[in-house]
Amino acid sequence: MDPTELLQRWALVRNRTESLAAALSVEDQQIQSMPDASPTKWHLAHSSWFFEEFVLKPHAPRYEPFDARYTYLFNSYYDAVGPRHPRAARGLLSRPSLHDVNRYRSHVDQSLVRCLKGGVSAEVERAIVLGLQHEEQHQELVLTDIKHAFGTNPVKPSYGQVAQGDPQACGDAKFMPRDAGLVSVGDGTQGFAFDNERPRHRTFLEAYELADRLVTVGEYLEFIRAGGYQRAELWLAEAQGWLRSEQVTAPLYWELDDGDARLFDLRGGSRPLNPAEPVCHVSYFEADAFARWAGARLPTEFEWEAVAAEHAIGGNLLEQARLHPRAAAPADGSVRQLFGDVWEWTQSTYGAYPGYRPLEGAFGEYNGKFMCNQFVLRGGSCLTPREHVRPTYRNFFPAGARWQMTGLRLARARA
Amino acid sequence: MDPTELLQRWALVRNRTESLAAALSVEDQQIQSMPDASPTKWHLAHSSWFFEEFVLKPHAPRYEPFDARYTYLFNSYYDAVGPRHPRAARGLLSRPSLHDVNRYRSHVDQSLVRCLKGGVSAEVERAIVLGLQHEEQHQELVLTDIKHAFGTNPVKPSYGQVAQGDPQACGDAKFMPRDAGLVSVGDGTQGFAFDNERPRHRTFLEAYELADRLVTVGEYLEFIRAGGYQRAELWLAEAQGWLRSEQVTAPLYWELDDGDARLFDLRGGSRPLNPAEPVCHVSYFEADAFARWAGARLPTEFEWEAVAAEHAIGGNLLEQARLHPRAAAPADGSVRQLFGDVWEWTQSTYGAYPGYRPLEGAFGEYNGKFMCNQFVLRGGSCLTPREHVRPTYRNFFPAGARWQMTGLRLARARA
Amino acid sequence: MDPTELLQRWALVRNRTESLAAALSVEDQQIQSMPDASPTKWHLAHSSWFFEEFVLKPHAPRYEPFDARYTYLFNSYYDAVGPRHPRAARGLLSRPSLHDVNRYRSHVDQSLVRCLKGGVSAEVERAIVLGLQHEEQHQELVLTDIKHAFGTNPVKPSYGQVAQGDPQACGDAKFMPRDAGLVSVGDGTQGFAFDNERPRHRTFLEAYELADRLVTVGEYLEFIRAGGYQRAELWLAEAQGWLRSEQVTAPLYWELDDGDARLFDLRGGSRPLNPAEPVCHVSYFEADAFARWAGARLPTEFEWEAVAAEHAIGGNLLEQARLHPRAAAPADGSVRQLFGDVWEWTQSTYGAYPGYRPLEGAFGEYNGKFMCNQFVLRGGSCLTPREHVRPTYRNFFPAGARWQMTGLRLARARA
Amino acid sequence: MDPTELLQRWALVRNRTESLAAALSVEDQQIQSMPDASPTKWHLAHSSWFFEEFVLKPHAPRYEPFDARYTYLFNSYYDAVGPRHPRAARGLLSRPSLHDVNRYRSHVDQSLVRCLKGGVSAEVERAIVLGLQHEEQHQELVLTDIKHAFGTNPVKPSYGQVAQGDPQACGDAKFMPRDAGLVSVGDGTQGFAFDNERPRHRTFLEAYELADRLVTVGEYLEFIRAGGYQRAELWLAEAQGWLRSEQVTAPLYWELDDGDARLFDLRGGSRPLNPAEPVCHVSYFEADAFARWAGARLPTEFEWEAVAAEHAIGGNLLEQARLHPRAAAPADGSVRQLFGDVWEWTQSTYGAYPGYRPLEGAFGEYNGKFMCNQFVLRGGSCLTPREHVRPTYRNFFPAGARWQMTGLRLARARA
Repeated sequence: MDPTELLQRWALVRNRTESLAAALSVEDQQIQSMPDASPTKWHLAHSSWFFEEFVLKPHAPRYEPFDARYTYLFNSYYDAVGPRHPRAARGLLSRPSLHDVNRYRSHVDQSLVRCLKGGVSAEVERAIVLGLQHEEQHQELVLTDIKHAFGTNPVKPSYGQVAQGDPQACGDAKFMPRDAGLVSVGDGTQGFAFDNERPRHRTFLEAYELADRLVTVGEYLEFIRAGGYQRAELWLAEAQGWLRSEQVTAPLYWELDDGDARLFDLRGGSRPLNPAEPVCHVSYFEADAFARWAGARLPTEFEWEAVAAEHAIGGNLLEQARLHPRAAAPADGSVRQLFGDVWEWTQSTYGAYPGYRPLEGAFGEYNGKFMCNQFVLRGGSCLTPREHVRPTYRNFFPAGARWQMTGLRLARARA
Repeated sequence: MDPTELLQRWALVRNRTESLAAALSVEDQQIQSMPDASPTKWHLAHSSWFFEEFVLKPHAPRYEPFDARYTYLFNSYYDAVGPRHPRAARGLLSRPSLHDVNRYRSHVDQSLVRCLKGGVSAEVERAIVLGLQHEEQHQELVLTDIKHAFGTNPVKPSYGQVAQGDPQACGDAKFMPRDAGLVSVGDGTQGFAFDNERPRHRTFLEAYELADRLVTVGEYLEFIRAGGYQRAELWLAEAQGWLRSEQVTAPLYWELDDGDARLFDLRGGSRPLNPAEPVCHVSYFEADAFARWAGARLPTEFEWEAVAAEHAIGGNLLEQARLHPRAAAPADGSVRQLFGDVWEWTQSTYGAYPGYRPLEGAFGEYNGKFMCNQFVLRGGSCLTPREHVRPTYRNFFPAGARWQMTGLRLARARA
Repeated sequence: MDPTELLQRWALVRNRTESLAAALSVEDQQIQSMPDASPTKWHLAHSSWFFEEFVLKPHAPRYEPFDARYTYLFNSYYDAVGPRHPRAARGLLSRPSLHDVNRYRSHVDQSLVRCLKGGVSAEVERAIVLGLQHEEQHQELVLTDIKHAFGTNPVKPSYGQVAQGDPQACGDAKFMPRDAGLVSVGDGTQGFAFDNERPRHRTFLEAYELADRLVTVGEYLEFIRAGGYQRAELWLAEAQGWLRSEQVTAPLYWELDDGDARLFDLRGGSRPLNPAEPVCHVSYFEADAFARWAGARLPTEFEWEAVAAEHAIGGNLLEQARLHPRAAAPADGSVRQLFGDVWEWTQSTYGAYPGYRPLEGAFGEYNGKFMCNQFVLRGGSCLTPREHVRPTYRNFFPAGARWQMTGLRLARARA
Repeated sequence: MDPTELLQRWALVRNRTESLAAALSVEDQQIQSMPDASPTKWHLAHSSWFFEEFVLKPHAPRYEPFDARYTYLFNSYYDAVGPRHPRAARGLLSRPSLHDVNRYRSHVDQSLVRCLKGGVSAEVERAIVLGLQHEEQHQELVLTDIKHAFGTNPVKPSYGQVAQGDPQACGDAKFMPRDAGLVSVGDGTQGFAFDNERPRHRTFLEAYELADRLVTVGEYLEFIRAGGYQRAELWLAEAQGWLRSEQVTAPLYWELDDGDARLFDLRGGSRPLNPAEPVCHVSYFEADAFARWAGARLPTEFEWEAVAAEHAIGGNLLEQARLHPRAAAPADGSVRQLFGDVWEWTQSTYGAYPGYRPLEGAFGEYNGKFMCNQFVLRGGSCLTPREHVRPTYRNFFPAGARWQMTGLRLARARA
């Protein structure tokens, strides 16, 4: 990458993190509403920690660490770096203060820009690019995590103003047929991709059909009203235990009491459901049960990728600043909403591609060690930055997770 | 009480709460380091809520509640008032902000002062006095709760500067004999006392002896070094499960690694042990095991009260601003350290006195419903305001609690 | 004790254990329906283990242990004897077989009788007498534990035939007044008593009244129908968590579905409620809430003992072989049902008497280490052998236990 | 299938279940040593229940159910049949007795033989064949479940006599190369196969190599001695939590204390390790970590199947009656130990084949609802009946399960 371009990209990504945080109070940035979520302050610190540990300490000769204790405090899960503060206790660190963490960010920024201006090796450049992709992942988490904190607060604070004028209807979905055949999947470019997207390899797909838009709130409401949550035959065995222990009867952030049907929107707080919008905040369990009820199934990750590879990236992404999925545009004969809006659950479990090689050293812990009991999601969401989206990109979460922007699209075998 | 006196007392108590909070950052006041502890911000709000719900709403005719949602948010455990925000989730309320909570305090202050100036009935005065006693209890909790947050934070923040020049030695304890006989215990005055201190009644004490000072850090260290924590015969059966599950090997906030012996002091952070200081932050289980090891036992609450009733109140209390127990003054033939320093575990379980009557209405929930599986502590601590201490005062905690300022004094049957 | 008398008592107690087990199948004697309960087979073995470890091994010079592994397998909780098989896994020991355990009993029987015939010291005699009292406690547990196994088995097996012809009505309870005064309580005799009953000592009782019979099923049903389980103000704070987590809405073994009101009776299985019978299988929490609802309270253990000391022992005990509490006989001006029927919850917590000294050595673990978070019950039950009952006898269980034969009697302050 | 053949197969399978149980005592057949395991008695009943519910009740017109309560008691997980006794409480049913359960088996046997002799439709025949395959699965479980009960009993009972004369050495494993290409996998025959093996379909395999024998005890011991369990970089993130919570440091049933290295063998109890035997009772987590340490990986299920499809079925299966994996025969240029010895973990998660259709009705619950968070194992074990083994057979367990006969074989990408 051209050095100027990298400097620009550095500024863009780092500033965006800070501007996402700027709408939040000091107290908002402190709290952790569940172990899976992290405080904004922690995201601000950890995304800087990544550069300090993996770029500045090993590669910037005269770098002075900001505070030796941060190695421990802001490590997420890198065993190679050493022990770490327990995940569930991130919200209890009132010290270091937000002020200190912001000073830490500046310190890392200045050091890294100095480093970049001095010229860096290809290896260091790769580490910086990885760190920026990493920070973009945490940008999405800043928003999903504060959404959880706000959505579970009885006073239901909101992060901004809700967008007006969204369409309240959308036509029926149509299944688009695809022939059987051998396809190539995964990343084969010289550009950036995570190790889990590689190597590019061949896979055989039997003939299938893919819905031309996402499943909507209106369709999901029908499923609920048809008793979907009570019909054991629609649910995986493990899902049944999850439904009971979590007492789930609707997507996360929905309120269906008293005939009233509302959801919590990051911008605008509690508001009525819009049936035309893509359903969001459903778990794999719910996506799988809905698909079975609808006489369909979830696509595999490669069924999705084979189609997505033929489309230009675009849609309702972070830059649109809606922060909520949006009803599909009118049908136009193509497959819509592939990118943005919601991460789409696939029936594929997260595993290694044939010939997979983790990155060397601590970076090898980035992805590979999570290849167990997780499902792949594809396509990015309304909280994902545009440049973070790729047809080969593999997101992954356990079957019960639903605080992310997760929805679904139907598929089925070709008749 | 004289109206002016009550106004003065109001100002004194309410201001003290705020000045205790003033040393803490916005973030410090937000966090809740365990379910038993509460955020400073919550204490600030709840102690105002008490006056709003029990004085202003029922008795101030034109009172405008500050925010209707606070009834739910800041209820601690009053079923008569209605449902409440879950205790363990108090630290997740980034909104209402600290700023709002402080405005809430002012609103309540102004309304209540107006009310007082207008003259109040005896019943309302009783409710206000109860509310001030209640707020004093929360003052102690503000300090013990932030101590827990700071003491479990790897960066070990401190609340102030440690006091200098404390004595590092103190002489042996001496057992002071008391004859058997019928004594009267409990409160029989017209002044303020909690319902659990009443009625005054007779109880028979066999002859006993009471140590003339508290057990010290040095003595407790001996117990540890003699393998006290490993000797099953010293511990209650329930304590053994507690030791295993909590992995307890020393008082809370002690660090005994590597030959180094330190503790966490609210003022000054981590610092070396002082053997002459009273041991603090031990559970009932530990106090009981230590006493058995020492060939003694814990006193009953009435053995303690019978002696304390003969002494003037004084000692190392909140006003001294040390915030830590202090070595005993030289022996003088009296029983020392009865008030202040540490709450003293007794072997008495918390129960109703013969003829006990809970207060009417919601106030009846203040004490009575906790009379199960708790032990009585007596005497007040270095965090207790002077006017909050009485010889008849009964504090109570479960056998495993140790984040309060809890220590012990030995007793034994008279030979 | 006369040697012949001790031999007779030996035969009587040991045979009774075996005849209680004889009504059960090999499979019944194997199972453990919850951690608090133990398999019959385990009771058969452990009550022999007690004699092997505490009498035969230390005092019978040529004694050959039956199987060295039993020291570990059948230790209940004696740390002084060494490690032990986990309590919750007692039901998983299909080996040693019941046949082996019965051979173990014979081996111990023969060795002990040989020992007794040779003459024993006073110390050994005391150990044997303690062992027989211990075995009697396990006789009651054999029955309560198998009742739990049968009562939670969907096929509801029964242990025998239900007794016929019980009265279906009993008159109102009457409160019998007692004056205030100093009384002596606890055991002061030369006969057998547990260490927790000693020493005899003085205590002062304020004036009170004690109900002249136990609370009945009919009265308790009224409490339920008045919404007693839903009225928060009647329950201890800790009880509220217990009600929720255990989902308690009636005494254990009651079925109140569909207007039908039944209970599980060890003899005869599921059968309709008899309103005149004493209520049984209630926890301390339930007893305490009922008493509050009834405008009364539970007696203290000494209020009970002061009355019981004036009555002859008798009533519905194990020898009556009803295995269920029975309606009170017609009122006769005395306090009825003091002994037998149900263990009566008192408001007294289980603690040490002034001057309490645990027995020496391992026997010291028998009682003292349980003096925490337990309430005292008095009087014996329909499953307690006659000679096991004393006015000074202190049984104890945690506030939530209810698989024992536990009921209540009301008390109140004298007007 | 020829009716006589089906009758013979009926007799063979049903008798084998009973002869497996015959070596166990009444008490052995009662107990359930963990929620995942079931009592022998329950297996005896449930495998009969399957025929009663799915063959006799719907298809045998005059069939009289043995006991109406068994529908509830012995249902494993069929929601379509109705509610069921909780899985973890199977061991608490001392009633129905083993005697009753054996009478139940006879009743079902006689009714079903009568039914078969009268001639059955193809649909009923299919249900019976499925029921016999089902019963064979439970035969393996009878043995693995009692192995768990015995292996966790301190007295370590054994089920029989250990086989003598096993080889104590075996040569190095050799990786056998396979070319890339499209292969067909899954069952495409008219014979019996579970729905999860269908439909036969195409999949593309990149070039790979498969080890010609299973991983041995000796190789696994090297991994342990090289600190394998302590090296975080070898383990999946989820495995690390599992290692901690389960305190795993060796395969299940291994004892490595004091330099002594032993394992528990169902026949013969505790005995020294034999380094040449296949390692057994490892979880997916351990298999995956070992493979990573060895510079290899686990095969996918299709890599395994493509090779296995070329080999005749045979090896150390249930009929050999060794009940333990056995050292590989000398190398002969082929891939050895594909069938029998141990179930081989693959890196494939258990999911639906393209075009998968569950069976109709309750049989649809047999497999499909478990397609979540499970890994596929292939090849059968030393406890699997010969006729139960197929190259297309898919066994599946969660990543932490290890009480089954589970081992591994290495694979790697072709250089």
